[in-house]
Amino acid sequence: MPKPRIATLDLEGVLSPEIWISIAERTKINELRLTTRDISDYDELMQHRLKILDSQDIKLSDIQNVIENMPLLEGAKEFLDGLRSICQVIILSDTFAEFANPIMKKLGYPTLFCHNLEIKGDKIINYKLRQKNQKQHAVEAFKSLNFGVFAAGDSYNDIEMLKTADKACLFCAPNSVKKEFPQFKAVETYGDLMSEFLKFT
Amino acid sequence: MPKPRIATLDLEGVLSPEIWISIAERTKINELRLTTRDISDYDELMQHRLKILDSQDIKLSDIQNVIENMPLLEGAKEFLDGLRSICQVIILSDTFAEFANPIMKKLGYPTLFCHNLEIKGDKIINYKLRQKNQKQHAVEAFKSLNFGVFAAGDSYNDIEMLKTADKACLFCAPNSVKKEFPQFKAVETYGDLMSEFLKFT
Repeated sequence: MPKPRIATLDLEGVLSPEIWISIAERTKINELRLTTRDISDYDELMQHRLKILDSQDIKLSDIQNVIENMPLLEGAKEFLDGLRSICQVIILSDTFAEFANPIMKKLGYPTLFCHNLEIKGDKIINYKLRQKNQKQHAVEAFKSLNFGVFAAGDSYNDIEMLKTADKACLFCAPNSVKKEFPQFKAVETYGDLMSEFLKFT
Repeated sequence: MPKPRIATLDLEGVLSPEIWISIAERTKINELRLTTRDISDYDELMQHRLKILDSQDIKLSDIQNVIENMPLLEGAKEFLDGLRSICQVIILSDTFAEFANPIMKKLGYPTLFCHNLEIKGDKIINYKLRQKNQKQHAVEAFKSLNFGVFAAGDSYNDIEMLKTADKACLFCAPNSVKKEFPQFKAVETYGDLMSEFLKFT
C-alpha cells in the first residue's frame, strides 16, 4: 500500500495574490513593492516595511482591510476544496497569521502554518518567525509521520520545501525560477496541478 | 511573545459518536461493540472485526452509509468552527480515512491525521496503521515546529497525546479514565473546553 498523501501548498501566488503587492497598490506606496529580490536580507526588508507603515501611520486594521478586499486567485477555492476532499492539505506560508486570517476565512479555514506579528493596540510593532526554514521543517515532520508529501509553490522561499517533498511542482512561477530549477515540473493551471497530484501515489 | 498555538483533537467521542458502536447498532451485530477494553490487543480486535464483516458480507459502502447517517455530537461543528477561526486545528484519530471522510465533510474538512484501510472493490481486506503511537508522534512533530500544543481526548489511546502536549484536557471521558489520570483537567462541555483553550497561552 502507498503512503497516505499530504499536500503542502504555498499561499501567496498559489491561492491568493501577493499580500505586500496588494498593500502597495492600495496605499500607493511603491516602496512596499520591494521583495527579497530587491533587499535580499529578509529581516532588513521587513524592518524597512515596518518603518514605512509606521511613518505613514498605516495600522494593522488598514492592512487587514486591504486583505479582506483582495479576491482569491480565480479558481483557487474550487481547486483547494477538491484537493481537501481527497487528501490532507497544509498551507505553508511565510506570511503572518494576522494578515492571513481573512484569506483563510475565504478559503474555508484550511490548516495554515505561518508566522506572527507583534501587535500593540492596532499598531504593528515587530514580527516573529515561528521558525527559520519552517516550510522545509514542516515537510520533514510530515515525512517523519509517514506521509508521502506533494508540494507546490512559486518562488525562492518555496525551493527547500519542494526539494524536501516526495513530489513537487512549481505553480505559475516566474521564468527566472523555472529556469534556475528545471528539476521541478512547472504548471500554470489548477487543472494541471491537480493532474500532477493525482499521478503521485 | 507566546508560541503560536495548535490544537490536536481526538475525533470519536469528542466531535463524533464512536464509529464501531454505530456500526454495531445499525447492523445489530453486538460483537462489533467490542473495544480494546474487551480485546486488549488492537490487531486481534481489528482482525476479529474484519472477520465478522466478511462473514456477514458487510461491505465498505454499507459502513460508509452508516457513518453518513451518523450525526455529529451536538454543538461539535460550532465548537470546531470557533476553534479553527482562532488557531490551527489537527484532528488526530486512530480511525481510517475511508470511514472518516463523511464525518470530515460534515465538519468542513478540518485536517485529519489517521490510518487507512486496504480495499478491494467494495470489500475491506485489511487495515494499515500509518504509524504506531501516531498521536504522540504528531504532537512531538508540532512541538518541533515551535507550536504550543493544546490536546483534548477521551480515552486510553489519547493518553500519550495528552501527556506530550503542553496543555491537555479530557473531554467527556469515562469515569475510569478520569480516575486513572487525575493530572488532566476533565471537562464535559464544549464551552468549558473552549475556556480551557483560551487560558492556554
